[in-house]
Amino acid sequence: MRTTPFLRNAVPFRGQASSKLRERVRRPQYLNRIALPEDLAPLFKNDDYIGWSGFTGVGYPKTVPTAIADHVEANNLQADPSTKKKFNLFVGASVGPEVEERWAKMDMIARRYPHQVGKEIAKGINSGRIEFADKHLSMFPQDLTYGYYSLKKNHGDPRKPLDWAIVEATAITEDGFIVPGASVGATPEIVQSAEKIIIEVNTLLPNLEGLHDINHSWMPPHRPPYLVTHPQDRIGRTAIPIDPERVIAIVESDKPDNTGENAPEDETSKAIAQHLIAFLSDEVSAGRLPKALLPLQSGIGNVANSIIGGLADGPFEGVHVWTEVLQDTFIRFLDSGKLSFATATSIRFSKEGFDHFYKHWDEYKDRLLLRSQQVANAPEIIRRLGVIAMNTPLEVDIYAHANSTNALGSRMLNGLGGSADFLRNAKLSIMHTPSARPTKTDPTGISCIVPFASHVDQTEHDLDVIVTEQGLADLRGLSPRERAPLIIQKCAHPDYRDILMDYYERALHECLKKGMGHEPHMLRNALKFHINYMDHGTMKIKSWD
Amino acid sequence: MRTTPFLRNAVPFRGQASSKLRERVRRPQYLNRIALPEDLAPLFKNDDYIGWSGFTGVGYPKTVPTAIADHVEANNLQADPSTKKKFNLFVGASVGPEVEERWAKMDMIARRYPHQVGKEIAKGINSGRIEFADKHLSMFPQDLTYGYYSLKKNHGDPRKPLDWAIVEATAITEDGFIVPGASVGATPEIVQSAEKIIIEVNTLLPNLEGLHDINHSWMPPHRPPYLVTHPQDRIGRTAIPIDPERVIAIVESDKPDNTGENAPEDETSKAIAQHLIAFLSDEVSAGRLPKALLPLQSGIGNVANSIIGGLADGPFEGVHVWTEVLQDTFIRFLDSGKLSFATATSIRFSKEGFDHFYKHWDEYKDRLLLRSQQVANAPEIIRRLGVIAMNTPLEVDIYAHANSTNALGSRMLNGLGGSADFLRNAKLSIMHTPSARPTKTDPTGISCIVPFASHVDQTEHDLDVIVTEQGLADLRGLSPRERAPLIIQKCAHPDYRDILMDYYERALHECLKKGMGHEPHMLRNALKFHINYMDHGTMKIKSWD
Repeated sequence: MRTTPFLRNAVPFRGQASSKLRERVRRPQYLNRIALPEDLAPLFKNDDYIGWSGFTGVGYPKTVPTAIADHVEANNLQADPSTKKKFNLFVGASVGPEVEERWAKMDMIARRYPHQVGKEIAKGINSGRIEFADKHLSMFPQDLTYGYYSLKKNHGDPRKPLDWAIVEATAITEDGFIVPGASVGATPEIVQSAEKIIIEVNTLLPNLEGLHDINHSWMPPHRPPYLVTHPQDRIGRTAIPIDPERVIAIVESDKPDNTGENAPEDETSKAIAQHLIAFLSDEVSAGRLPKALLPLQSGIGNVANSIIGGLADGPFEGVHVWTEVLQDTFIRFLDSGKLSFATATSIRFSKEGFDHFYKHWDEYKDRLLLRSQQVANAPEIIRRLGVIAMNTPLEVDIYAHANSTNALGSRMLNGLGGSADFLRNAKLSIMHTPSARPTKTDPTGISCIVPFASHVDQTEHDLDVIVTEQGLADLRGLSPRERAPLIIQKCAHPDYRDILMDYYERALHECLKKGMGHEPHMLRNALKFHINYMDHGTMKIKSWD
Repeated sequence: MRTTPFLRNAVPFRGQASSKLRERVRRPQYLNRIALPEDLAPLFKNDDYIGWSGFTGVGYPKTVPTAIADHVEANNLQADPSTKKKFNLFVGASVGPEVEERWAKMDMIARRYPHQVGKEIAKGINSGRIEFADKHLSMFPQDLTYGYYSLKKNHGDPRKPLDWAIVEATAITEDGFIVPGASVGATPEIVQSAEKIIIEVNTLLPNLEGLHDINHSWMPPHRPPYLVTHPQDRIGRTAIPIDPERVIAIVESDKPDNTGENAPEDETSKAIAQHLIAFLSDEVSAGRLPKALLPLQSGIGNVANSIIGGLADGPFEGVHVWTEVLQDTFIRFLDSGKLSFATATSIRFSKEGFDHFYKHWDEYKDRLLLRSQQVANAPEIIRRLGVIAMNTPLEVDIYAHANSTNALGSRMLNGLGGSADFLRNAKLSIMHTPSARPTKTDPTGISCIVPFASHVDQTEHDLDVIVTEQGLADLRGLSPRERAPLIIQKCAHPDYRDILMDYYERALHECLKKGMGHEPHMLRNALKFHINYMDHGTMKIKSWD
């Protein structure tokens, strides 16, 4: 068993405490543990279980993972099975491409949970080099603390699921607690689960102390309720509690969060946003929603950007947001005065967005709060507050099952994320998608409305509304036989509408005849759209015969 | 708009208050509203929205629904479209066959949410006569109060989703509040949602006052937390609050709950239970479960009976139960002294079970508590307590998606029930099924492990363990490529094992080659088991070519 004292002796503390670092690290004992990333890199052993801070490409450690990759590269370790290093990597969601993509490309990742973004990592997963499983983002941290991801780990401290936590901080308190950057994610549970902790103190970013609300993860059956009844409610402290004995090194970092541009709006995303805002207005008129709406959750992407942009110009005042991640358009929404308060687990602005945000920090800081993903995505709070949830699927079927993850049933894109946490528990569960997505081989592209989802992440029991640029289908209270024609007529692309109706009507006829017509399908044809696309490059089949 | 005063005048109050009834009805004003069921029957109009009490065939109204059917039958109303009566029926879950099955057979049900049990009602649903949608049982009551099931209702009080509530009581308090029978279900929200309320006071059953814990359903965003941190915690009152002005009639009933026998144990169910109890013992040894386990949820059926029976003879002491429904074997579990306390939304004993239970009421009453289904199935509490959830699917696929509802993707059996409430939120989510189910056309029967579920109610992100009489697959922390061989080897019937492995290996080979091997499928063959069964009466296909 490798123990902390042994390990701490093994770390060459060659780092110097810069004046910037001294300003941020308020625990004097930590200043004796300042190390250089390159001195830490060789300590990481093949098959180690490593947790990083970070969520949606923000708040992740930048220097130590880079130094580990440099070390592996410089010593050509991956060339030989006896020196090869592959790690088990656990991060709340995605991190910056310069670390995760590089590790994936260098084949340094054996296992990665529970979400990822990037071409190289997706390639590793889909080619069989990386074992990946996506999990509800609210559950990942608790399952980590339960030991569910370390059942096969047979080295190190058996009480600790992770060998290492490498986490970014923008400050460290007198108690040695961590003030995170612009995301919280699973960091509280990752440090709770790790035998050894390395903290990268980022002195480029401002000290974000006060932005966060951190609560402890208790083990059942002794978990208390989350006493949140309003998006503004605080239930924890402003820093992540940590056992200072397990902090084996402090590293200074001055690298920015490497976020790309936000997806730009287009005519399709604007049309979807218009349908949605009209629907929400109707719900207010009918008395089913308050005038200020209910707390909003909105996913990532151009449709989400259009919706939030539309709300900034829209008819609702005093709006609150309870979501997973904030994109650039939230700045506009805040500036409009219509958004009163927003809480999330991550702020994922573009470089320009962050520049603006940090420059005007004093204006925004009292209207924002970041929580751990276990709390931000908690079914308990989402259901209690009656959140309005809006997310994008890959495809939705005619009975309202949605695929959020696997193209053609098999190829992983990014993972489930928090979509199901929100859609299962929201008061209004909305999925928005273009009716078709362009491909090289078909002018219309593939249909996002299909007879039978090739993978199901959201069930028919979880969706209330489906909306495309074509229109909006309100599915509340409808049976499957009522849903199918409505989804097809309101949401499908005109090029696919007739063939989808033909599927439904034939399936209905066949199934009623056999006394099995609750959710009519022709199983022999159910996946024909997808099979035809794989074989012929188009979902436009000639007929169902 | 039909209003209550008008209606109350229209009710002939010909009923007599028997001495038994006077003992149960403690609100004197109600004694002036005693009616005969046959006098109430003609008041129900075609297309009326009606809610009943009842859950798993217990606590439902018996006399008024019967009188309505008698009235329809006696006047031959269904023979003519101009006199035909079809109703929209909302009940927490299933009710006794003498009412629901009879209504279905007489084509008196236009719409039925969110669960049902019975040949006639399933026939109506699958032949297109009854519009049905299943919904998470925790969400049905709130969606009812939100007005989601009455968006098309264009008569009566627009503020009330239901025209009528017909509910059973075993007593009525001084305030006019309802003491239910052996189930709570959605009754609190059904009376909250109804314009007119009829109470059937059942004088055959004992007064069960004290057995229930009832809390009010608030509307978001003003919902408080459920302050339950232990299965015994009470957060409400012992009767269902009601607006006495809306009670238009009281009816006396002396009919018993018409429950059938519990499904008997067999060798298969016992083998499944043994695998499961061994697994739970191992988890205790590994320190991942406390010695008294965590609160248990167990479904309905013979496997559930075997598990609970096995626990009554098993190694765990001081066990608690947080579940949806209690079956007969819970009596044995209580009598063994190993079950300390059980809470549910319904007690569904056999006739013999109820006879024993009511006879020994004093011995059991302090160890049982019934809650509304919105609370019993609340994700909030299930997750907080870390419930161990165990349920039976129709089929599970090799990546751990489960079908709980639709045979061959289309034919509805009973509906989702609370399975997904528990499986999504439990600390341990377990599905148990025989590896195959007998059919007339195949000696082995159909395989319950299939390449691709023909309908998905539980996703791969929700299941931790799959167990059949063949063995147990612990899926925690595994990727899809790790799960498939394990499920096939541990759980599939030997007659299907090789063909399933062949599917997986071919799919893996094909998908890795194309760079889409995260969750390998051959979509052209994914549903071949099911299609072959429909065409040839067996799932035993010759090959995948």
